[in-house]
Amino acid sequence: MKVVKNISEIQRICLDYKRAGKIIGLVPTMGYLHEGHLSLVREAKKRCDTVIVSIFVNPIQFGKGEDYDIYPRDLGRDIELLTEEKADILFAPSVREMYPEGYSTFVEVEGEITSKMCGASRPGHFRGVTTVVSKLFNICLPDYAFFGQKDAQQVTIIEKMARELNFPIEIVRVPIVREEDGLAMSSRNVYLAPEERREALVLYQSLQHALKLIKSGERDVPRIKREMEEMIKSRPRAEIDYIEIVRAEDLAYIDKIEGRVLVALAVRIGKTRLIDNLLVEV
Amino acid sequence: MKVVKNISEIQRICLDYKRAGKIIGLVPTMGYLHEGHLSLVREAKKRCDTVIVSIFVNPIQFGKGEDYDIYPRDLGRDIELLTEEKADILFAPSVREMYPEGYSTFVEVEGEITSKMCGASRPGHFRGVTTVVSKLFNICLPDYAFFGQKDAQQVTIIEKMARELNFPIEIVRVPIVREEDGLAMSSRNVYLAPEERREALVLYQSLQHALKLIKSGERDVPRIKREMEEMIKSRPRAEIDYIEIVRAEDLAYIDKIEGRVLVALAVRIGKTRLIDNLLVEV
Repeated sequence: MKVVKNISEIQRICLDYKRAGKIIGLVPTMGYLHEGHLSLVREAKKRCDTVIVSIFVNPIQFGKGEDYDIYPRDLGRDIELLTEEKADILFAPSVREMYPEGYSTFVEVEGEITSKMCGASRPGHFRGVTTVVSKLFNICLPDYAFFGQKDAQQVTIIEKMARELNFPIEIVRVPIVREEDGLAMSSRNVYLAPEERREALVLYQSLQHALKLIKSGERDVPRIKREMEEMIKSRPRAEIDYIEIVRAEDLAYIDKIEGRVLVALAVRIGKTRLIDNLLVEV
Repeated sequence: MKVVKNISEIQRICLDYKRAGKIIGLVPTMGYLHEGHLSLVREAKKRCDTVIVSIFVNPIQFGKGEDYDIYPRDLGRDIELLTEEKADILFAPSVREMYPEGYSTFVEVEGEITSKMCGASRPGHFRGVTTVVSKLFNICLPDYAFFGQKDAQQVTIIEKMARELNFPIEIVRVPIVREEDGLAMSSRNVYLAPEERREALVLYQSLQHALKLIKSGERDVPRIKREMEEMIKSRPRAEIDYIEIVRAEDLAYIDKIEGRVLVALAVRIGKTRLIDNLLVEV
């Protein structure tokens, strides 16, 4: 696997691939890779001639007081994992390479889709995401870009951005990968102390409970949310950031379960903010 | 010349060109073409295998009360002119094609570069420009994009946007084309009544006066601006919007003429807002 840190170098490589008619796949990540990321790489390998993985902890998607400085990083281990998966190129630029002195261009999806849920708890977060993803799209010129369903709001926003800015790119959603007990894989799970790790399971459990309710015919959104809330509140270290049940397509609020629905939540376990979600179709 | 109105159709054509290794040139315009536009097409023909001209009067770059509704349009005549110039494709989408229901993604260059000069008189204007140009870049996948020096602030902002979002595109600036008496070509010149047309010449004359002062050794920016102002104020139908002398590279304010300098102005002649500028290097 080739490791590239320089934008103009990888862009030249990608332009040459493009001109040679090769299908390029991009897997944008912030590194500290886990099985969730690797499932994106495997999906990309299936569909593309060349798979580029980017690792970049993007400062502009972190708010003040968030975990940018302590976000886990281990490039050596990531390189080993990606080499095993036979990724073709790792693009790992520096912050200065991506945001040179005086940088001031941003891509923003406006409206409720970015201001609710994670956007409410993390103002400016999605603007940082759509900006860096636009840059990565222009640098790597992928035909397909792969994102995890774990960040459901993020991938919905990126789909809207890609569609509205007319990127010639297909966004591929890859299902959540979970630990054996159901906890969604996340680089942030490493923050959890053992007792927090046990309590963290409540995100998955509350989603499973919602699923059970829906399958048993419950259609009332406030009632389902209330039961999830009660379940989570029973855990002493858990503090709810949000629980939302929205239309999967555009994250619009709904009162009744109907069509494709996203049940999504963010919960703080101690100091660690975790997210999880479930897609249901009725 | 092929005329395409559909985004997915032209994007497919452009992707095929790209994969075949062809060099694509894009000339984005709002139509009602004049010699200035045609000089962009000629420059594009010199450098590229395929030249795409877009005609789209972009509603989101017009402010409230501006001339979007009455902006001159004549697609039939434009097609004739572009056919003569041997442009390869005309892309002329509808507003609904470019901004479907619920559209909410924008590209913005922030800071003084967009908030001063035309950005001060036309809030949101450059956000509309950078958004539509990003869309056109993604749709047409050009290797080169051609912009007139007439809109000096616009092309400087587009260069910054293209560089910061890492578009794999070279921005080419093409010099201002003028009428015989010096008036910069503009689709908006058609708004001018005969006596306004005569007074409109004062933009060019004041620039020539600034040039003469600079060539004679004048380096004091406020003094040059003052003389330009006096000259323009002597015309009864002329109302100054702004006169600025800035560093050409980033439009930063300067006190002394030094290096590459842009002298730029916007003047209302009756109801018509005209702009013009001059690049000087000392």
